[in-house]
Amino acid sequence: MAYAPTLAWTPLSGPEEAQIVAAHAARMQRYVDFLSIPSVSAVPEHAADCRKAAEWLAAELRRIGAKRVEVSETGGHPIVVGERIEDPKLPTIVIYGHYDVQPGDPLDLWKTSPFEPIVRDGRMLGRGSADDKGQIVIHLAALEALLSTRGKLPVNVKYLFEGEEESSSVNLERWMAANPERCSGDAVIISDTGFFEGNLPALTVGLRGITYMQVDVRNSDVDLHSGGYGGSVINPANALAAMIASLHDENRHITVPGFYDDVVELSPDDRAAFAALPFSDANYLAGIDAKATQGEAGYSTVERRGGRPTLDVNGIWGGFTGDGSKTIIPAHAHAKISCRLVMAQDPAKIALQVEAALKAAAPRGLDVEVRNLGNGYPFLTPLGDPYLKAAAGALKETFGADPLYLREGGSIPIAALFQRELSLPVVLLGFTPPDDNAHAPNESMDLGNFEGGIRAVIRALDAVAALR
Amino acid sequence: MAYAPTLAWTPLSGPEEAQIVAAHAARMQRYVDFLSIPSVSAVPEHAADCRKAAEWLAAELRRIGAKRVEVSETGGHPIVVGERIEDPKLPTIVIYGHYDVQPGDPLDLWKTSPFEPIVRDGRMLGRGSADDKGQIVIHLAALEALLSTRGKLPVNVKYLFEGEEESSSVNLERWMAANPERCSGDAVIISDTGFFEGNLPALTVGLRGITYMQVDVRNSDVDLHSGGYGGSVINPANALAAMIASLHDENRHITVPGFYDDVVELSPDDRAAFAALPFSDANYLAGIDAKATQGEAGYSTVERRGGRPTLDVNGIWGGFTGDGSKTIIPAHAHAKISCRLVMAQDPAKIALQVEAALKAAAPRGLDVEVRNLGNGYPFLTPLGDPYLKAAAGALKETFGADPLYLREGGSIPIAALFQRELSLPVVLLGFTPPDDNAHAPNESMDLGNFEGGIRAVIRALDAVAALR
Repeated sequence: MAYAPTLAWTPLSGPEEAQIVAAHAARMQRYVDFLSIPSVSAVPEHAADCRKAAEWLAAELRRIGAKRVEVSETGGHPIVVGERIEDPKLPTIVIYGHYDVQPGDPLDLWKTSPFEPIVRDGRMLGRGSADDKGQIVIHLAALEALLSTRGKLPVNVKYLFEGEEESSSVNLERWMAANPERCSGDAVIISDTGFFEGNLPALTVGLRGITYMQVDVRNSDVDLHSGGYGGSVINPANALAAMIASLHDENRHITVPGFYDDVVELSPDDRAAFAALPFSDANYLAGIDAKATQGEAGYSTVERRGGRPTLDVNGIWGGFTGDGSKTIIPAHAHAKISCRLVMAQDPAKIALQVEAALKAAAPRGLDVEVRNLGNGYPFLTPLGDPYLKAAAGALKETFGADPLYLREGGSIPIAALFQRELSLPVVLLGFTPPDDNAHAPNESMDLGNFEGGIRAVIRALDAVAALR
Repeated sequence: MAYAPTLAWTPLSGPEEAQIVAAHAARMQRYVDFLSIPSVSAVPEHAADCRKAAEWLAAELRRIGAKRVEVSETGGHPIVVGERIEDPKLPTIVIYGHYDVQPGDPLDLWKTSPFEPIVRDGRMLGRGSADDKGQIVIHLAALEALLSTRGKLPVNVKYLFEGEEESSSVNLERWMAANPERCSGDAVIISDTGFFEGNLPALTVGLRGITYMQVDVRNSDVDLHSGGYGGSVINPANALAAMIASLHDENRHITVPGFYDDVVELSPDDRAAFAALPFSDANYLAGIDAKATQGEAGYSTVERRGGRPTLDVNGIWGGFTGDGSKTIIPAHAHAKISCRLVMAQDPAKIALQVEAALKAAAPRGLDVEVRNLGNGYPFLTPLGDPYLKAAAGALKETFGADPLYLREGGSIPIAALFQRELSLPVVLLGFTPPDDNAHAPNESMDLGNFEGGIRAVIRALDAVAALR
């Protein structure tokens, strides 16, 4: 992908602008420091790195003037909290980000080392540069600029940075129930999403839910000679392939019984909104060097991505995978499978349905174990929400264009969690377009978006203050 | 699997018996030395070990009196040859074995280290103890006993020990064509098969052929975020699973067009011979801790194993396979697939048919590459062959029972190669029952079979001499 320069952004008119410019070099160094910590939440060996990233973040919050900063235990990776309560009469905004990142592999496809960040061609390259450490640094920069110039914020803020977003936020819900005061307020800003293709500013109003599972199938106690056993016993790898294949029909509908029962079908208005997006299948494919779209019959690509549920293999393995040939029947085979979900599917219910479908498709006698590795609810925000409008104004003032309203294919469990459990409006204000390669090799962030993001956050907080 | 003592064997009546007994300790040490060399032909890192095993074998042949010993280049791993031409009027027997072995993995399932052989409970434990180094040591011991007591052999012998049997003997056919004098003679004895279940002596009269291939499918240049791409682009892991699943129908018939065209169907006599074998599905399953047989409708388990072709996944991999969860659409996915073949299927033709079927089952736009990693023809030997009868007599004299005549599920490409290219009768005289775990962790050889094997080889050579 060639580097595409971002839309220009408009500087602030107040004294914060000079502060942000003056702090540039130090801020970039801190950005690099943060990205250098390999806080991969899904890999147990990186637990100490996750804690290191949390401690780094807490120290940063204290340095720039946040109060009640704490690295709070969850049973898994900790949550970092801090706040500025300027005046109880002001609205209180909870600002969410996550300091954990996806694994760096496959390392051989990175042009640079994932945890040795470097600026190149106007972009910060490194795991977490976009998802989501870069966006946390944007909020820290906005906070620092406001406090060092005005001495106070226009609204109250509570920061909540978790360390398990890439592991389905497994401990967040329980932590929130145990710490209600830390996440109470008038609205939530989540900065973990971003712009549309072409770097058009955008606000995400819909997110898919997820359920993630691992399937383990076993037939024999050891790998078997394919001469002595081929054709006469169950081959777990063939069986797993057939079980997976059975979950879709020829129209790419998912065949799991009950899977679509709770799906809210797209309305004509929903479909019109999807059709209005400046989305091109050809660009979408060119960006990933792929030749063809594929998906559920009866829906456009952008509808399939944002408005329809999925069932995907995230990984599969079993038997001999080295160079050359080994003539075995594998003893066991495995797959990671996840479903992206839409309103109003319940991830726990879907997980059980998929498990039942896999077991029903397995040959008699094969051991099948399905483990649920994480769930997240789908999310939708109403277009008339005043906080959403405040954010839209800040984006337009900063980036010179009205934002698009998106329904994204990804999942941010906390968005649904705040909406479901705390009944708070949730605004998804983010700055990373899809070509930032979140979750893939060569993740990067456009530094134009990064700089504009700092100004947009300040404008958004001022706009929220003006709501009262 | 519990240790089952072998049938008793009958000592030789001549002076060779005392020599074999006296040489026992030294022979066991050489057996251990040979097994300690990790000559894994399929793994490029072990190329030097394969050569080391070849050199070791050549030195052994020279030590015990073989002539014209040579480590002969093939372009891959070398072939070790040597001979004793006692008298041009005597029949000449070509004796074949292979010094290469299967990989040791998965190492965690071995009770001992695969390349640190050890004697335990009357068995030699270690990779290659049965398949096939142990059987080569049997022939070396027989040669040594005959030459050191009689000063000559009862027949002429030519030894041919290859190093690529576990890699589909990729260079053997070309080498044989270039070295016809090294493999000419009156008959071939191949010692790479063995006894039936329960350690009953047996002669294998049928072997399946094989074609082995690797399938590589690719959709995108990098792994993709399953949120942004799930449901709207091809998932190579799901696609590969569906492609593999499409190759069997619900009766476990293989659906590859043309696959069965050349299959010689089992005759009523063939089926009666299979039915006469003391084969028990329950024992077969108990031996591998599996719960159910599975195979082509209309055939018994022992028929499926020895008399019908197969299509099995030997390994499959793609995407995220670590601990925890990673929400990606894999960029690519892979499988090793092999077919066991029966008379008169042509492996090269089958390879092309499977490739075509895989490509036909792939979604449009997915890159599919299929590479053939090796082929071997199926094999059948006539029951009336005089060399087969000579071997049967030697087995009965040694082990006290008439051998069973087996059609085995495995493949020994050289058997078909000698039969097809040189028009020589081929006798498969081997001593390893299925519970020796060839190709699996904890490979071992019963030392009763090993000792009996030495006597049986001497008796077989004497019996061949008596044919004239």
